[in-house]
Amino acid sequence: MLRIQPDEMRSVMTEKLVAHGVPTDIAADCAALLVENSLDGIVSHGVNRFPRLISYLEKDYIHADRKPSLVQSYGAFEKWDGNLGMGNTNAKYCMDRAIELARQYGIGCVALRNTNHWMRGGAYGLQAANAGCIGICWTNTQPNMPAWGGKDRRIGNNPLIMCVPRKDGKHVMMDGAMAMFSYGAIEKARLEGKMLPVEGGFDTKGNVTKDPAEIEKTWRVLPIGYWKGSCISIMMDMIASTLAEGNPVCGVGALGDDEYALCQIMIAIDAERISPSMEENVNRIIADIKGSERVNPDQELLYPNELSYIAREDSEKNGIPVNESVWEQVLAL
Amino acid sequence: MLRIQPDEMRSVMTEKLVAHGVPTDIAADCAALLVENSLDGIVSHGVNRFPRLISYLEKDYIHADRKPSLVQSYGAFEKWDGNLGMGNTNAKYCMDRAIELARQYGIGCVALRNTNHWMRGGAYGLQAANAGCIGICWTNTQPNMPAWGGKDRRIGNNPLIMCVPRKDGKHVMMDGAMAMFSYGAIEKARLEGKMLPVEGGFDTKGNVTKDPAEIEKTWRVLPIGYWKGSCISIMMDMIASTLAEGNPVCGVGALGDDEYALCQIMIAIDAERISPSMEENVNRIIADIKGSERVNPDQELLYPNELSYIAREDSEKNGIPVNESVWEQVLAL
Repeated sequence: MLRIQPDEMRSVMTEKLVAHGVPTDIAADCAALLVENSLDGIVSHGVNRFPRLISYLEKDYIHADRKPSLVQSYGAFEKWDGNLGMGNTNAKYCMDRAIELARQYGIGCVALRNTNHWMRGGAYGLQAANAGCIGICWTNTQPNMPAWGGKDRRIGNNPLIMCVPRKDGKHVMMDGAMAMFSYGAIEKARLEGKMLPVEGGFDTKGNVTKDPAEIEKTWRVLPIGYWKGSCISIMMDMIASTLAEGNPVCGVGALGDDEYALCQIMIAIDAERISPSMEENVNRIIADIKGSERVNPDQELLYPNELSYIAREDSEKNGIPVNESVWEQVLAL
Repeated sequence: MLRIQPDEMRSVMTEKLVAHGVPTDIAADCAALLVENSLDGIVSHGVNRFPRLISYLEKDYIHADRKPSLVQSYGAFEKWDGNLGMGNTNAKYCMDRAIELARQYGIGCVALRNTNHWMRGGAYGLQAANAGCIGICWTNTQPNMPAWGGKDRRIGNNPLIMCVPRKDGKHVMMDGAMAMFSYGAIEKARLEGKMLPVEGGFDTKGNVTKDPAEIEKTWRVLPIGYWKGSCISIMMDMIASTLAEGNPVCGVGALGDDEYALCQIMIAIDAERISPSMEENVNRIIADIKGSERVNPDQELLYPNELSYIAREDSEKNGIPVNESVWEQVLAL
């Protein structure tokens, strides 16, 4: 495992993006977001995903010279078109717009269509929280999970992000997809010869299993809460694609095997202004949870997103841990 | 099993509420909501819950003569105080207010504190959808589930509701709590001598189990998606109690063993106006899901909330199915 300094990672990525035709300002923004995700320990949606991002530029799915444009305004709600621009800078732009609307109206919401993969959804929750706002956002995806009662993949592993700000920047955040495990997590467990910690999908006999190799044979991954996560996933897709008037999950699937032209929802609420008691309330909830009787006496309960602050402290001190072959691949792009 | 006509149920409940000091208009509204829930097959949050509602009036948790009052307006976002009034009419009032805000600003959000149990959360999602709006709402609860990594109950079984309108009134809706199974569902399985269909909690040895009797010994119920549902539950509570500046789940717990003085969030988005393509998009998603390769060839996949329309058709034709002893109890109140 290499350790790469954030400045170096940022400049390498920016340079590679510019070399692939991305305008300088968008390249810098895109690289900065990927470095932040990597610093927080989310390399799967940071540096590890960079080669695929470049391949999507080469395949012309991402038109990085385009910025989002306003389709229509309804006051605190706006509909935007991503024009198939860079996914993470599009998302950042639209969360900024939601924050501006929240300043004006208390709450702001942007529905975005024709956009690309936003990498780590949590980046936009943290962005809202850094502005003193509660951030709620989600995206649809390509069809990658069966609906409950079905065998073939028709619904999305749509991630839901909910983030509440704290003054020290250690915001409380849920950033999780509607599948119990990502394809990446299932592959990783198989390569390490491990079972998943809980059931993650179906085997070839139609039984639920913790065995990642069996799940990879069927790709019938489990939604969180079985039928419940299936329903939440369907609703997230329906709301995003309806409000943005863009592709639903099945529409993304109809485009082919790659994932582009997605819909997203960004909501910001001006919590700092609305709730003078926010800091006290948030800390009270965290303290209560940490006061739980522990399953493992040595394992403190963590609040949502606390792990990423632990990872970040290490990355800032020692550099970002990057798999050697991934970094070689990045340098060779 | 008795069959009670909705008109009869409505007039019996209204009469009982008035006899317990509830003003006529609130009694009529409250009874109408409970009958609607019962018609949809959600008797657990309809007629079956009526005796407990009356006991909460008697215990003075519910001050049914009070209506919600505006604390502060921020434009499209408003903070309201429920003044410990009737839970379901408070919620209905505040979702109506969110709908009015959505008409004006595209999106409207109300945070409500000091309110009481809203019975079926889905009622307010359907209310938004009946007005052509997408409705999103949630409530916090008393502490009734351990946080992930903890043994004692510190987080809420907070239900999340997301509803998208359809022209024929058969709206698509997720209405589900963050525990895999409700206490009622666990008790029901034990009484029927059945195992739960999937793991629902921990046994006395600390292992996950489908055995309802074992779960009732520990009351360590499982969140949907294990750590994921635990995080979503914490965020829902944190957002609602922060924005409403009311009791978080641990604050509700500090009041004692009964559940009152809750916080809720109601969001409405004027989808009919924003999305001329809504009906087409929603039907496309439903058709795609129904086109899945089926696990059980004889079992059609249902869209979220479809079951309740099937129940309703039966109830409207034959009367609402009510357990005999429950109805006797209601009549005796």
